[in-house]
Amino acid sequence: MTVVSEVRDTIALLRAQVADLHAELTRNQLVIWTAGNVSARVPGRELLVIKPSGVSYDELTPESMVVTDFDGRLVEGTRSPSSDTDAHAYVYRHLPEVGGVVHTHSTYACAWAALGRPVPCVLTMMADEFGGEIPIGPFALIGDDSIGRGIVETLRHSRSRAVLMANHGPFTIGRDAREAVKAAVMCEDVCRSVYMAMQLGDPAPIPQDKIDSLFARYQNVYGQPGPAGPGKDV
Amino acid sequence: MTVVSEVRDTIALLRAQVADLHAELTRNQLVIWTAGNVSARVPGRELLVIKPSGVSYDELTPESMVVTDFDGRLVEGTRSPSSDTDAHAYVYRHLPEVGGVVHTHSTYACAWAALGRPVPCVLTMMADEFGGEIPIGPFALIGDDSIGRGIVETLRHSRSRAVLMANHGPFTIGRDAREAVKAAVMCEDVCRSVYMAMQLGDPAPIPQDKIDSLFARYQNVYGQPGPAGPGKDV
Amino acid sequence: MTVVSEVRDTIALLRAQVADLHAELTRNQLVIWTAGNVSARVPGRELLVIKPSGVSYDELTPESMVVTDFDGRLVEGTRSPSSDTDAHAYVYRHLPEVGGVVHTHSTYACAWAALGRPVPCVLTMMADEFGGEIPIGPFALIGDDSIGRGIVETLRHSRSRAVLMANHGPFTIGRDAREAVKAAVMCEDVCRSVYMAMQLGDPAPIPQDKIDSLFARYQNVYGQPGPAGPGKDV
Amino acid sequence: MTVVSEVRDTIALLRAQVADLHAELTRNQLVIWTAGNVSARVPGRELLVIKPSGVSYDELTPESMVVTDFDGRLVEGTRSPSSDTDAHAYVYRHLPEVGGVVHTHSTYACAWAALGRPVPCVLTMMADEFGGEIPIGPFALIGDDSIGRGIVETLRHSRSRAVLMANHGPFTIGRDAREAVKAAVMCEDVCRSVYMAMQLGDPAPIPQDKIDSLFARYQNVYGQPGPAGPGKDV
Repeated sequence: MTVVSEVRDTIALLRAQVADLHAELTRNQLVIWTAGNVSARVPGRELLVIKPSGVSYDELTPESMVVTDFDGRLVEGTRSPSSDTDAHAYVYRHLPEVGGVVHTHSTYACAWAALGRPVPCVLTMMADEFGGEIPIGPFALIGDDSIGRGIVETLRHSRSRAVLMANHGPFTIGRDAREAVKAAVMCEDVCRSVYMAMQLGDPAPIPQDKIDSLFARYQNVYGQPGPAGPGKDV
Repeated sequence: MTVVSEVRDTIALLRAQVADLHAELTRNQLVIWTAGNVSARVPGRELLVIKPSGVSYDELTPESMVVTDFDGRLVEGTRSPSSDTDAHAYVYRHLPEVGGVVHTHSTYACAWAALGRPVPCVLTMMADEFGGEIPIGPFALIGDDSIGRGIVETLRHSRSRAVLMANHGPFTIGRDAREAVKAAVMCEDVCRSVYMAMQLGDPAPIPQDKIDSLFARYQNVYGQPGPAGPGKDV
Repeated sequence: MTVVSEVRDTIALLRAQVADLHAELTRNQLVIWTAGNVSARVPGRELLVIKPSGVSYDELTPESMVVTDFDGRLVEGTRSPSSDTDAHAYVYRHLPEVGGVVHTHSTYACAWAALGRPVPCVLTMMADEFGGEIPIGPFALIGDDSIGRGIVETLRHSRSRAVLMANHGPFTIGRDAREAVKAAVMCEDVCRSVYMAMQLGDPAPIPQDKIDSLFARYQNVYGQPGPAGPGKDV
Repeated sequence: MTVVSEVRDTIALLRAQVADLHAELTRNQLVIWTAGNVSARVPGRELLVIKPSGVSYDELTPESMVVTDFDGRLVEGTRSPSSDTDAHAYVYRHLPEVGGVVHTHSTYACAWAALGRPVPCVLTMMADEFGGEIPIGPFALIGDDSIGRGIVETLRHSRSRAVLMANHGPFTIGRDAREAVKAAVMCEDVCRSVYMAMQLGDPAPIPQDKIDSLFARYQNVYGQPGPAGPGKDV
């Protein structure tokens, strides 16, 4: 296919990167069986590289990754794309600065998602990475664009790179796939620590001006500004 | 033995598969010491392949697996079959569509089993995989067919592939051994997430029609209909 | 030393076995740093083989194990014996059927120990392995025979192979070192599951006659009767 | 640079040691992504060896470690030093007996830190290692010497080698980097066990005279006196 052949080298790199990044999901115990996926936008194209559906993490290779368009239709590859492809594609279409999306069912993020309660910002690491609380997205069924819409509408009004879809689980975004994976790792970590804190008592919230200061510094000092989707003030 | 020699190749394959699948139990931290087992039905025969009793997971080989009839009597192999063989055999005899059975004492499933309370369906992953809550089976002692009966009677009235036997632990079923292992992995995972959610507050149940929709889609889209034992409406 | 040379082969085997068994402590995440130890009685002698003090688990070799008498005095080896040697020695001296002792600071066992509350028997696995609740031993300081005495006095009146020393942690016993390690693994596992169950609600206790039945069967069917110290009714 | 060349061999050893010790942070699951660091004082110099910023733990080599002065300025190495370097440097400048500092965001320590509540001394292992409760430090923002000052002021009035900085996480100290890493491992372990104990009920505190006795014995018998910063009574 012509469109694809023009960006062959880029796609080859993204296939390798996306395949490798799934190892971070297992290493950080964010996924079981085949229940999580990473994707990357093909820059400048309405294409994305994503995990094939139902394939074990230890069988993933660059070659087994698939390429779809933003309607989730297979463009390159022999396997079916992840059943979450529609949600990823919706995010890329509506948040142009996003270059990577990750979805998992990590334990503590799912617990907060089941409860439908945002994770309060009580740790400096949360202020650094998420710029405040981790928000809850709406309950949405798979099958149409409800999940994608829920992610985009929630993250548009937040500095967070993570959203916990109600009764479902976390989706994270980043300027590239690696940054989205980092956000997924950090999301589970703070969901776990804050859960523990709330079992012990009432953790003290960090004042808003301190959160702002920490977030601004982290995004600048580390040279890693947020994905700057519409409505982001980074 | 003639019966066995006729299906020698099938049994050789099942021995290898069942031996390998035990590695998923340890990899997913569902078992300690020797406290869990996987079996597979020999298609078309009243025979099953199961783990030998008291052998460490890292010493399991295809050759060390044993074959028994549906009374739990050793047909092939030199070691004693798992002490849970009677329960596995009972399930195969009474649920003809079941091709694999798994038993573990995974931590969170055992916690719910000790409490004797079904796990409420508050996560889409539960709706997908189990079609609703994970039910509790009766308290039953090892030594006769009480455990097998309890499993069958509970799962007959449920879409779930997992049952938590009271004060004991989870048994899962599938159309083959791999599907039963997947159910064991998913069972522990949702038992853990829902446990966490209930420590934080009252997770919102997913409405029944949404559960039905998710279950129907997952079983069809993924081409993995449930084990369809008697009473199943898949 | 003559006494030792007479049993040289036995001690060589025990050195290898005790060194190897420490790998089960790390594999089952029962220990951190150097905070746990396994010992074995030298049959027919007032001698034991134990871990040296302060050595990392991945540096343990058969040669680095040390041999002491029942006063904790070094008989063979170049390093200091574990600082818990006195407690191990006391157990061997007073419970002649015990052939192995294990001490860890595993997380959930320590939680129950800090609380000073016995772990109720609400899981069949507990009935099988421990014959009832896991008891609490007295608070005792290191430095004299208080810990050893506390272990022996508690286990003499229990079928359990594990005791949780108050504000300290678990000690387990077995007819040999491997059985004591198994008890340590099972102890942490049931301490964890029962902890989880109690966070969810009030787990139903297993009736005493059912516990007796399960314990009797497990000890016979598996051919692994308890360590049968004085006062045991196995 | 002359100052450095004079201590070249010492620095080479410290680079290797500090690089290696980071593997203990991952092995003990104290860190995710790049969120934790170890440093060592260069004896007799106002210099320290520390992890570079933002580098993955599995890419750390002795050569990638960096050397800074006590103002956090890079003296040797090509990468930026850890963003926590100022806090480490402050500790070395004000606590001359400290030879190693560790910072992590380990889960349970962060939970207590978010709550701002000291960890009560209810386990003998805490009395041994920390000589009492693990204290809470003030809430402090990164960017000036607030964090360093908070660590030093808190640890000056405590026998503990660990401080939980409010809403942030643990810092630990030791006479050398290895001892500080050990304290970080032990800190997370007791934070976890005591958390579990408090979920079950009210753990009994260890009386002060018993804590004193345990601490004195452990520091002497093991030949590992505390870092003896000003105000320490070891």
